[in-house]
Amino acid sequence: MSQFWSDIVKELQPYVPGEQPKEGQFIKLNSNESPFPPSPHAVALMEKALHGSLALYPDAEATPVREAVAQYYAIEPQQVFVGNGSDEVLAHIFHGLFCHQGKHILFPSITYSFYPVYAKLYQVAYREVPLAVDYSIDLNPYLQANSEEVSAIIFANPNAPTGIALSLSQIEQLLNAQPNILIVVDEAYVDFGAETAVALIAKYPNLLVTQTLSKSRSLAGIRVGFAFGQASLIEALIRVKNSFNSYPIDRIAQAGAIGAFEDEAYFNQTRQMIIDSRTYLSQAVQQMGFEVLPSSTNFIFMRHSQLEAAQLAFSLREKGILVRHFKQKPIEQFLRVTIGTQKNCEKLVNALCEIVSKGMM
Amino acid sequence: MSQFWSDIVKELQPYVPGEQPKEGQFIKLNSNESPFPPSPHAVALMEKALHGSLALYPDAEATPVREAVAQYYAIEPQQVFVGNGSDEVLAHIFHGLFCHQGKHILFPSITYSFYPVYAKLYQVAYREVPLAVDYSIDLNPYLQANSEEVSAIIFANPNAPTGIALSLSQIEQLLNAQPNILIVVDEAYVDFGAETAVALIAKYPNLLVTQTLSKSRSLAGIRVGFAFGQASLIEALIRVKNSFNSYPIDRIAQAGAIGAFEDEAYFNQTRQMIIDSRTYLSQAVQQMGFEVLPSSTNFIFMRHSQLEAAQLAFSLREKGILVRHFKQKPIEQFLRVTIGTQKNCEKLVNALCEIVSKGMM
Repeated sequence: MSQFWSDIVKELQPYVPGEQPKEGQFIKLNSNESPFPPSPHAVALMEKALHGSLALYPDAEATPVREAVAQYYAIEPQQVFVGNGSDEVLAHIFHGLFCHQGKHILFPSITYSFYPVYAKLYQVAYREVPLAVDYSIDLNPYLQANSEEVSAIIFANPNAPTGIALSLSQIEQLLNAQPNILIVVDEAYVDFGAETAVALIAKYPNLLVTQTLSKSRSLAGIRVGFAFGQASLIEALIRVKNSFNSYPIDRIAQAGAIGAFEDEAYFNQTRQMIIDSRTYLSQAVQQMGFEVLPSSTNFIFMRHSQLEAAQLAFSLREKGILVRHFKQKPIEQFLRVTIGTQKNCEKLVNALCEIVSKGMM
Repeated sequence: MSQFWSDIVKELQPYVPGEQPKEGQFIKLNSNESPFPPSPHAVALMEKALHGSLALYPDAEATPVREAVAQYYAIEPQQVFVGNGSDEVLAHIFHGLFCHQGKHILFPSITYSFYPVYAKLYQVAYREVPLAVDYSIDLNPYLQANSEEVSAIIFANPNAPTGIALSLSQIEQLLNAQPNILIVVDEAYVDFGAETAVALIAKYPNLLVTQTLSKSRSLAGIRVGFAFGQASLIEALIRVKNSFNSYPIDRIAQAGAIGAFEDEAYFNQTRQMIIDSRTYLSQAVQQMGFEVLPSSTNFIFMRHSQLEAAQLAFSLREKGILVRHFKQKPIEQFLRVTIGTQKNCEKLVNALCEIVSKGMM
């Protein structure tokens, strides 16, 4: 530490992302990336951008991306914000929409673990709301929140790392109950089985939806994320962005984002393959004594009736397979396992079979 | 505006970057990009990354970039911070190093106009210090600053938009005079004729230097910037970054950054061509009655003895050439003109010749 650190820096507890080992060293099922390469059409557009005018700044507002994504969702470009990954989008939301003197925000005690990190960075007061006993998000505390005290509610839908989704009607129930509280729905995993709330933004000025290219679009490597909401909400994010970084989305990433949304066939094909492998994997591990929460994501969240999660993760690692284990209560006995290719799912099943049969002896 | 905006958002006065017109519409001499394409070696490495593992997250700390740049400058990787353009790096500096209760920072009244924008975003108190009468940075007020009141000093060297550089010995004088004030030297334009202060970081724990790939490395389109300083300063930036966005530098940008630093021959060749064209352009416009400040950058800052800057910029635009005009006093009669290719410098000279001779009739 240095005398020059800002007062706030010592207090930060930075987010710890999943381990990123050297490529090829492990079967990597620990950070929910897609096992498939990006759309060939997206790659072709990026190739063109690479050989284009890279010496020139990109479009500052990523206008062509906003237009392409607006068209995809049948909304307006002014209802789309583009950030350098959805993590940057979420950071701007915390900074630009959650800082209200004397108020706090609410989020589930088990959800994307970056939320409390942002809250500390921007000094946003927050309260964590416990999950229901079945690990789903319990809507009641949010429905009963007092808008004099609560400025915003944020949760992932489907939630992470549980994988469980709320229905669109539940979200609409919350939007109607709390017109004076901003509701942010983080849809990082929505394409694997939940319903997006994007179509509701026209009706609800208190709704903001975030998405990412890092999961269902196979583009974690180029960093593009989105927020969708009414233009006045998006304008707040643009004001923060233009006070932070004029050109956050590079030329190649902008091209890739457009290409990914234009290639709906590839998107549907790859996400269906992931959903099919999820069904296979869930059934296989249940036969070994794992409980699996109902997943609408590209991962499963599972625990064994008799074997310790930490030991299981360690044993898998020894067999060359990385999964994610959170030490936090009440999920300390669960493992989060990304759905890989069908072949890697089968390798995981074989590895788990050996570990479990040895562990149960 | 919306009831959901954070208290601070209404007060923001976002930075306004130079106009980015449709490509090919104008000769673009308004945002100090390089007129040359990036290094072919950098493009080849980016091509490889494009066809690599784009579905996987990039290295979160851009470790290979830190290693390559550290080797280039003969420093340690822990002394290098990598951001999504130097604008992001500067934002993290304001947030992570400039926020000290009861203190303020100092910067020149004429310098990179993003500094006051960051200050408002992070609620950093600041005072602006006037330039000397010759538009250079007057060191005296900084040498005399009281470290009980002043936490940091930031300026661009060479300064923008004046183009005038301080010498390395002047910067060292300041570092010695103010061991308890953080000195941030923004070297966006350093490669065009000033001396970098990077070699001083080992000696001065109060020095932080920023650089960018957007100017001398011809890579404004991919967004990479740096901070160099002792590891304890860099750690503050990493803590902010890991509370903001785990993976800010995408895989292709990381490859391009490494390639740009590896191809020193191309770098030296292109920056020399810009320096040569600057000499040509400065002499040509002086013959037309322009005063040109001594430039160590890839632009010149010039004013005509009799013609209005705003009118000149308008007339150039009509002839298909964009330059930058700041309405701010005392530089409201200057134009900032990026050094383009030699051919475009000649086109500019011809256009100015016509405008000036018509204007003087």
